[in-house]
Amino acid sequence: MKAIVIHGAKDLRIESREPESLGSGQVRVALEVGGICGSDLHYYRHGGFGAVRLKEPMILGHEVSGRILECSGDVGALKVGERVAISPSRPCRACRYCLEGMPNQCLHMRFYGSAMPFPHIQGAFRQELVADAAQCAAAGELSAEEAAMAEPLSVCLHAARRAGGMVGRSVLVTGCGPIGALCIIAARRAGADRIVATDLGAFPLAIARRIGADATIDMAADPQGLSAFGADNGTFDVLYECSGAASALVAAIPAMRPGATILQLGLGGDMSLPMQAITAKELTIKGSFRFHDEFFTAVSLMRKGLIDVKPLITHKFSLGQAVEAFETAGDRGRAMKAQIAF
Amino acid sequence: MKAIVIHGAKDLRIESREPESLGSGQVRVALEVGGICGSDLHYYRHGGFGAVRLKEPMILGHEVSGRILECSGDVGALKVGERVAISPSRPCRACRYCLEGMPNQCLHMRFYGSAMPFPHIQGAFRQELVADAAQCAAAGELSAEEAAMAEPLSVCLHAARRAGGMVGRSVLVTGCGPIGALCIIAARRAGADRIVATDLGAFPLAIARRIGADATIDMAADPQGLSAFGADNGTFDVLYECSGAASALVAAIPAMRPGATILQLGLGGDMSLPMQAITAKELTIKGSFRFHDEFFTAVSLMRKGLIDVKPLITHKFSLGQAVEAFETAGDRGRAMKAQIAF
Amino acid sequence: MKAIVIHGAKDLRIESREPESLGSGQVRVALEVGGICGSDLHYYRHGGFGAVRLKEPMILGHEVSGRILECSGDVGALKVGERVAISPSRPCRACRYCLEGMPNQCLHMRFYGSAMPFPHIQGAFRQELVADAAQCAAAGELSAEEAAMAEPLSVCLHAARRAGGMVGRSVLVTGCGPIGALCIIAARRAGADRIVATDLGAFPLAIARRIGADATIDMAADPQGLSAFGADNGTFDVLYECSGAASALVAAIPAMRPGATILQLGLGGDMSLPMQAITAKELTIKGSFRFHDEFFTAVSLMRKGLIDVKPLITHKFSLGQAVEAFETAGDRGRAMKAQIAF
Amino acid sequence: MKAIVIHGAKDLRIESREPESLGSGQVRVALEVGGICGSDLHYYRHGGFGAVRLKEPMILGHEVSGRILECSGDVGALKVGERVAISPSRPCRACRYCLEGMPNQCLHMRFYGSAMPFPHIQGAFRQELVADAAQCAAAGELSAEEAAMAEPLSVCLHAARRAGGMVGRSVLVTGCGPIGALCIIAARRAGADRIVATDLGAFPLAIARRIGADATIDMAADPQGLSAFGADNGTFDVLYECSGAASALVAAIPAMRPGATILQLGLGGDMSLPMQAITAKELTIKGSFRFHDEFFTAVSLMRKGLIDVKPLITHKFSLGQAVEAFETAGDRGRAMKAQIAF
Repeated sequence: MKAIVIHGAKDLRIESREPESLGSGQVRVALEVGGICGSDLHYYRHGGFGAVRLKEPMILGHEVSGRILECSGDVGALKVGERVAISPSRPCRACRYCLEGMPNQCLHMRFYGSAMPFPHIQGAFRQELVADAAQCAAAGELSAEEAAMAEPLSVCLHAARRAGGMVGRSVLVTGCGPIGALCIIAARRAGADRIVATDLGAFPLAIARRIGADATIDMAADPQGLSAFGADNGTFDVLYECSGAASALVAAIPAMRPGATILQLGLGGDMSLPMQAITAKELTIKGSFRFHDEFFTAVSLMRKGLIDVKPLITHKFSLGQAVEAFETAGDRGRAMKAQIAF
Repeated sequence: MKAIVIHGAKDLRIESREPESLGSGQVRVALEVGGICGSDLHYYRHGGFGAVRLKEPMILGHEVSGRILECSGDVGALKVGERVAISPSRPCRACRYCLEGMPNQCLHMRFYGSAMPFPHIQGAFRQELVADAAQCAAAGELSAEEAAMAEPLSVCLHAARRAGGMVGRSVLVTGCGPIGALCIIAARRAGADRIVATDLGAFPLAIARRIGADATIDMAADPQGLSAFGADNGTFDVLYECSGAASALVAAIPAMRPGATILQLGLGGDMSLPMQAITAKELTIKGSFRFHDEFFTAVSLMRKGLIDVKPLITHKFSLGQAVEAFETAGDRGRAMKAQIAF
Repeated sequence: MKAIVIHGAKDLRIESREPESLGSGQVRVALEVGGICGSDLHYYRHGGFGAVRLKEPMILGHEVSGRILECSGDVGALKVGERVAISPSRPCRACRYCLEGMPNQCLHMRFYGSAMPFPHIQGAFRQELVADAAQCAAAGELSAEEAAMAEPLSVCLHAARRAGGMVGRSVLVTGCGPIGALCIIAARRAGADRIVATDLGAFPLAIARRIGADATIDMAADPQGLSAFGADNGTFDVLYECSGAASALVAAIPAMRPGATILQLGLGGDMSLPMQAITAKELTIKGSFRFHDEFFTAVSLMRKGLIDVKPLITHKFSLGQAVEAFETAGDRGRAMKAQIAF
Repeated sequence: MKAIVIHGAKDLRIESREPESLGSGQVRVALEVGGICGSDLHYYRHGGFGAVRLKEPMILGHEVSGRILECSGDVGALKVGERVAISPSRPCRACRYCLEGMPNQCLHMRFYGSAMPFPHIQGAFRQELVADAAQCAAAGELSAEEAAMAEPLSVCLHAARRAGGMVGRSVLVTGCGPIGALCIIAARRAGADRIVATDLGAFPLAIARRIGADATIDMAADPQGLSAFGADNGTFDVLYECSGAASALVAAIPAMRPGATILQLGLGGDMSLPMQAITAKELTIKGSFRFHDEFFTAVSLMRKGLIDVKPLITHKFSLGQAVEAFETAGDRGRAMKAQIAF
């Protein structure tokens, strides 16, 4: 079995791995498609991000779909031959946070392709994967490409949930990579009224408009573009900050109405924030990190045709083109979501 | 100017009224369409409901749209000739509840066509109406029929807001008249996953399926139909109770999961409820009454094509057919929303 | 070892039981004091309540404290000789609701002295008890009597939590038995401003005033006593309904302000409620049932002197006086909390 | 009438002002005591803070109490001779935020002693003040000194409300000046269990312990003192950040449990924050600014003896000693709250 293994910055290799053994309540899946995520790119480009650093080779990837090859024991309704989206979220179901209903904060999380603990948690960019039945959502008529989008979509549905009621809200999204774009889709699905998106490039903003943004602002071309929304001390109810750049968040503050909520999804470094304005306007900033049961919601909403992620899938590569796939995925001027076929 | 006036149970008359004078910040509207609401029907059939009783003749109606004939003073962006949906919600903007952000609980509300205070608040089923600019939402390309649906849709968007985050929720709707049907649409728009609807007749349930319910149960034909949802102490996260019938609410309790939320929209009489089960399952029952700023959300979401109310509009009558319109509106076996053209 | 066993209505016996074996992570406790709860009384008087019925003999009791006799394995900081309050809440920590942070809704709860599943869950009115370390809260300098109050106090802290922020709230408590009285204490501890309590007798209301109610109303003597609070459509923000009597809840509705919250703790039969008023005022009714981690908060707040339950403990009996204890506990004209020493 | 007027940094003068005229629904108050707030100190030391700058002379002060000299028109139950605490919060009651129940975010707020709009809003450090009846809370048996503490206490009750339910919560307070100390009191009143406070000096921490903190950490002497609270990814549920110093907030992050809430009250400059940790732990940061109706709660809770602010009042000066009062108020090594008698 082939897998995509990161050894260090710019050192990505296709290697052979032994297939895993199949336990009871598990399924063996022939993976079809894997999407490249921003964290995969960080490992590829920099060998990690922030305090998270590669210390040993690690299989990358956590956005995958495939077809079930084999089942063992009680796997519910899952069947051999069926396409599934596979959730990378594997909480322990026993720690303090799991028992408080916050499995995404599990103290012993084994999230695919994560260098946070050591030994690292090996990822899912491989030809074959053994997964717990509880990780698998039957994909029905969804394509393998769509099914592999369930993971990033879950991140954004989780953020939309953390934002609270969205019906009729006026929403700003800063940063229109895949997460920003899926936040537009998630906010729209959750009932938002006006949605405005910002980025520094024309390509992502064109997709943003196509998937439902009412207006977009290219902050490179029009740095003061948000000032039109500053009347009456600000007009947006909710901000999904998906860029990880302090400049994006800082520029948005005057456009947020008093009492507004900012969801921080973007993972960058430290941010210098105007706390006096944040305090005086009584803004709320909420971190939003990963997801858990939103994964099954993501698949269900796609299957019902209530969410369409196809406009985001811009590139597909073969396993042998993995390096090209990663280089392309990082080019925000022409790629939204790049995927690899196994 | 002609108006539809209720004098008592089954005593509906078309009468002439003097046009109102136009004040500053107001518009004169030539009404096009008015929808018959359940409360209109109560006045027509019984002369009121509960403690609310007709004590003098009252113009009925509060779901209306029309074209602006004349503007006076500052009316914002409104223009003569433009189609508008007109909100019947006229809070005082000065009482305790208005100042707490609960204008729908205004102590001095002047909601069209309401017999609650005396003298009664005259309604909007008339050929011409003077309204505050703040009541009017520009309808753009919406038909007059759709624009007249903004009011009942607002009721359901208000309920969806009171329900809190809806993303991925499993939803039950009991009672599929216009309010129940619009709750299906509102819950879907707010991100619900599974939506099941119940009623006692085939006609409303067929519409429920058409507008997005995943499943429907005819409780007349299959009184135990909800038992399939009782596993693990119940599975629905949210119930929109739109029937006003205790039997519908009581039958739903075992299907609600512990901690679930019940929105009560239906206005019936007293209800005998199994409080021991409600307490032990820690259910939350929330009354939901009218709306205020959701009216503008309703029009905006319809204008963007995010909500389609057309499948609900089943009948249209001329002003001269008002009695027939009311008789038809009350026939749940064949009518969903009946409207009158002025 | 002696235990208090209920065999049926009015058939209470002191019987011998074999001591339980001690497992790892458990402690053996010589029980000192047990308080009689309303559910104990229901079994004693009627052999159950609602659908919950005795089908075999059952040791009663779930409000207990004692001293540790023996420890086995890892029991944290617990020590032999130490006084502990023992939580009767024993969720499975693995079912759907446990994993959602709702252990009080556990599908496999083994709550002491509960006839709900069969075989029944035996209770804690016994001379010796083996408990998990996780059930035990070190009582420090608290008396055994106070420690045995941790359980009903937890019920009320749980309700106070479900009520949300309480700072400055205007609170009504209907029914001033031990749960109502502890709701007064809990609401006060949570920051309530005005607290008014109602009951049908002078004795509980005198205690209510002593523990902090600003005003009390004897609804037997003054059935219209709440009308003074009905101005502006009602003035109470929160109601703790602890009587289980529909009449108490119904009388309170006009005194609740629009948007107010009603916590239902009292367990009675079905209640006929004025749903039209509840809906129009947009009241929220929330069931509140048992507790889980509030138990440790209860002990901690008592130990810090922030909550004083002593005024509620009106009677103490020996084990041999168990029948007299139960008869006394049921006499609301002179008993608040009756306890039994083991 | 004498008033304390700031002309610029370090330029504080006692000047004469004409008494104001008394309108209907207003009272004339002979002020007794005024407390010096951090914002008063900013004007005194630096002529402003952040973007808020003195542009003309301004009477300082907004924490005042006094006795009613004269009433005009309908002033409710207020009586000549009565002591009152006077709220400096004067929203317009007509703007968008007033009508949404956020009067502290009023677009036309006239808060005493504020240089934010121009002309500035003159303050309340004067011998005589005309106030609306709606600003006045009858102080009963409270001393003038206590009554003048209602204002800063309101700030902290507002923050406690924004924090949500506090029962049993584990709370950290960073910065123990008057606002931090009152947050300890407010959190305790709202039901907090463990309260830990940090500061850089022994004097404020001694007061913190006296008013109810369970533990204090002098971060100057023990910079790693919070590391004891970092187990299991953090243990505090709530942080009241009252220092306005980024270092205090940054040091607290590892001690906050996932999903914890940070209330930002301290007004400093920009803060560089570890957004990756904030995002990954899904912390919530909420600005908290001023207050409105909490003022009446503050007075009521003090009058009932449920909150005791006396330990915070460390200094009292005469009007002629105003400069010394301001110098003392700024000396955190020996002053908590300094007040001036008029």
